[in-house]
Amino acid sequence: MSKTLTFTYTDGLTLESGSTLPNFQLSYTTYGTLNKEKSNAILICHALSGDSDVGGASGWWKDVVGPGKSIDTHKYFVVCSNSLGSCYGSSGPTSVNDATQTEYGMDFPVVTVGDMVSAQRKLMDIFDLEKWHAVVGPSMGGMQALEWSIMYPDKVDICIPLVTTARLSTAALAFGAIGRNAITSDPNWNNGDYYGKTAPETGLSIARMIGHITYLSSEGLTQKFGRRLQEKQDYSYDFSTDFQIESYLQHQGDKFVNRFDANAYLYLSRAMSYFDLAKKYGSLNDAFDKSSAKFLVMSISSDTLYPSSQSKEIVKTLMKLNRQVTFVEIDSPHGHDGFLNESETNNHVLSSYLENVS
Amino acid sequence: MSKTLTFTYTDGLTLESGSTLPNFQLSYTTYGTLNKEKSNAILICHALSGDSDVGGASGWWKDVVGPGKSIDTHKYFVVCSNSLGSCYGSSGPTSVNDATQTEYGMDFPVVTVGDMVSAQRKLMDIFDLEKWHAVVGPSMGGMQALEWSIMYPDKVDICIPLVTTARLSTAALAFGAIGRNAITSDPNWNNGDYYGKTAPETGLSIARMIGHITYLSSEGLTQKFGRRLQEKQDYSYDFSTDFQIESYLQHQGDKFVNRFDANAYLYLSRAMSYFDLAKKYGSLNDAFDKSSAKFLVMSISSDTLYPSSQSKEIVKTLMKLNRQVTFVEIDSPHGHDGFLNESETNNHVLSSYLENVS
Repeated sequence: MSKTLTFTYTDGLTLESGSTLPNFQLSYTTYGTLNKEKSNAILICHALSGDSDVGGASGWWKDVVGPGKSIDTHKYFVVCSNSLGSCYGSSGPTSVNDATQTEYGMDFPVVTVGDMVSAQRKLMDIFDLEKWHAVVGPSMGGMQALEWSIMYPDKVDICIPLVTTARLSTAALAFGAIGRNAITSDPNWNNGDYYGKTAPETGLSIARMIGHITYLSSEGLTQKFGRRLQEKQDYSYDFSTDFQIESYLQHQGDKFVNRFDANAYLYLSRAMSYFDLAKKYGSLNDAFDKSSAKFLVMSISSDTLYPSSQSKEIVKTLMKLNRQVTFVEIDSPHGHDGFLNESETNNHVLSSYLENVS
Repeated sequence: MSKTLTFTYTDGLTLESGSTLPNFQLSYTTYGTLNKEKSNAILICHALSGDSDVGGASGWWKDVVGPGKSIDTHKYFVVCSNSLGSCYGSSGPTSVNDATQTEYGMDFPVVTVGDMVSAQRKLMDIFDLEKWHAVVGPSMGGMQALEWSIMYPDKVDICIPLVTTARLSTAALAFGAIGRNAITSDPNWNNGDYYGKTAPETGLSIARMIGHITYLSSEGLTQKFGRRLQEKQDYSYDFSTDFQIESYLQHQGDKFVNRFDANAYLYLSRAMSYFDLAKKYGSLNDAFDKSSAKFLVMSISSDTLYPSSQSKEIVKTLMKLNRQVTFVEIDSPHGHDGFLNESETNNHVLSSYLENVS
């Protein structure tokens, strides 16, 4: 059984930029029941385009989170909150600014991954929890899991970052920047002031297409689409959709603009570009020196967005610091999206780890 | 000494699509002097954004082509023509359609790499040439070199394709499609009818940014830019340009829209997406079975756009067919753009090959 609720905080959240968010809301979903000892709570943090519905019938990680699944909601009390800055019920650019009674748009302060974690930390108190049994997350969610282990070491028993990194590579920064550029170049973006008007759908669609290519590996793309034509026998010799990959990208772009806000995309993309544990804490060593959790780090062999080598860098640092760390690189052609596509392997690794380490 | 001239053909060019281009022009530049035996002519084919100025003071390959360079214009008669479909003096969407007396725009017929070669074949006759000593080209120019060796085997002594492929991978198709999408989504594109009005600069700029990322390797990007900030000490916590890579991309986009036509970009990108020797000739084996040239195939180890493996596939096919083939993979972090950045190695390989094989 799941519940989706809204948490409201009105005491002001100091952000890493130095600004203060006077108040904020987090939309969160819980699954299962918190036990008497309050020792079975697992926080799951979502990726860029996710929401708090991690384990429902159409949840983004329904193969991994649910009754009898590896993150078993019969056994664990699972909490997933929509990120600060996102557009699924948590405060972000689509929220109404009390001061003006209109949507924040670009007046919403820039938030960081650390700020997302600070906000989640406030949420934790409503369960009167001392400690998360585990904090788990893929991609941007993995960045949050890492920050949890560093910012609040006494609140995290187990930290499970998947397909993530301690900082974006130059290539990942570049793809993010081009996506943001596509949005802000769309005339309908109108400096972020488009609510109640036509949204910058074209720009957001292109940003999403760029994202999708980075989520799949070259090998995975070839396996999935090759150079197959879309419902035609030969080239059309025009500029219509000839290849399946063209049709797929268009479809992904179209679908996304119906469910996501362009400004929220800008804010979350910016937060990821700013995420850099070595910069924030002096070095990766200094960052993880603050942590005390047990770590399960998972990567996908063909992930080119946050390549395995970046997970290994985290693992090596943790090993040098004598932290208890397990590293699993899943051999898969599915690229970054492997965290969704390799659910059987994910399940196997997660369930055996959670069973044995607990 | 170089000369830039325009070749006009008025007998009608049958295109691979089945359409006929009633007439066309090719802008071409020559360097050096054709010898009496007419045995020293080298055709150089340019990449997507190139022009016929290959060896001038600001030529795109000035480190490789010129007096005393590895393609020595004291020794060779070098010809470079702007591709059919491009916007540097050859016929393409920016040309005036005789039938309407306005620019073709999207009424220009879709052309293929094979059509570019057919047009160059017509140009060849004005020199009363029997045979090119060599046909050389990087990237899209390499595709043309390959087509030359197959379409006109008795006209090519040596074929030198660099950083190219016999067909785009799915990932390369995808990046091309997103770039074209960025252009056609720009409201100023206006279905290609923007001449004398505002050009779709935003779309073209984004297409170029996407291109640039695929021209560099992840390693090369990291070496060149890392996560360094652009003239600031810390994050600005806004959406301005913080990272050097962001500034670089913006600069590349801005520069490109001042020198290239968006419709021409669409046409050349489409031509590359259609390039598929195996599809056109039945198989790669059937394609190269028609060839008789000696081949020097060059690739860059870190090229992710047209990876070395694709060059090796060409080489293996040629070896199976007992063609005389030399393969050089340049070990370089510069990615696809290595054909421009690795000029010293390029020079070394090209000059020793041309010297020894001649």
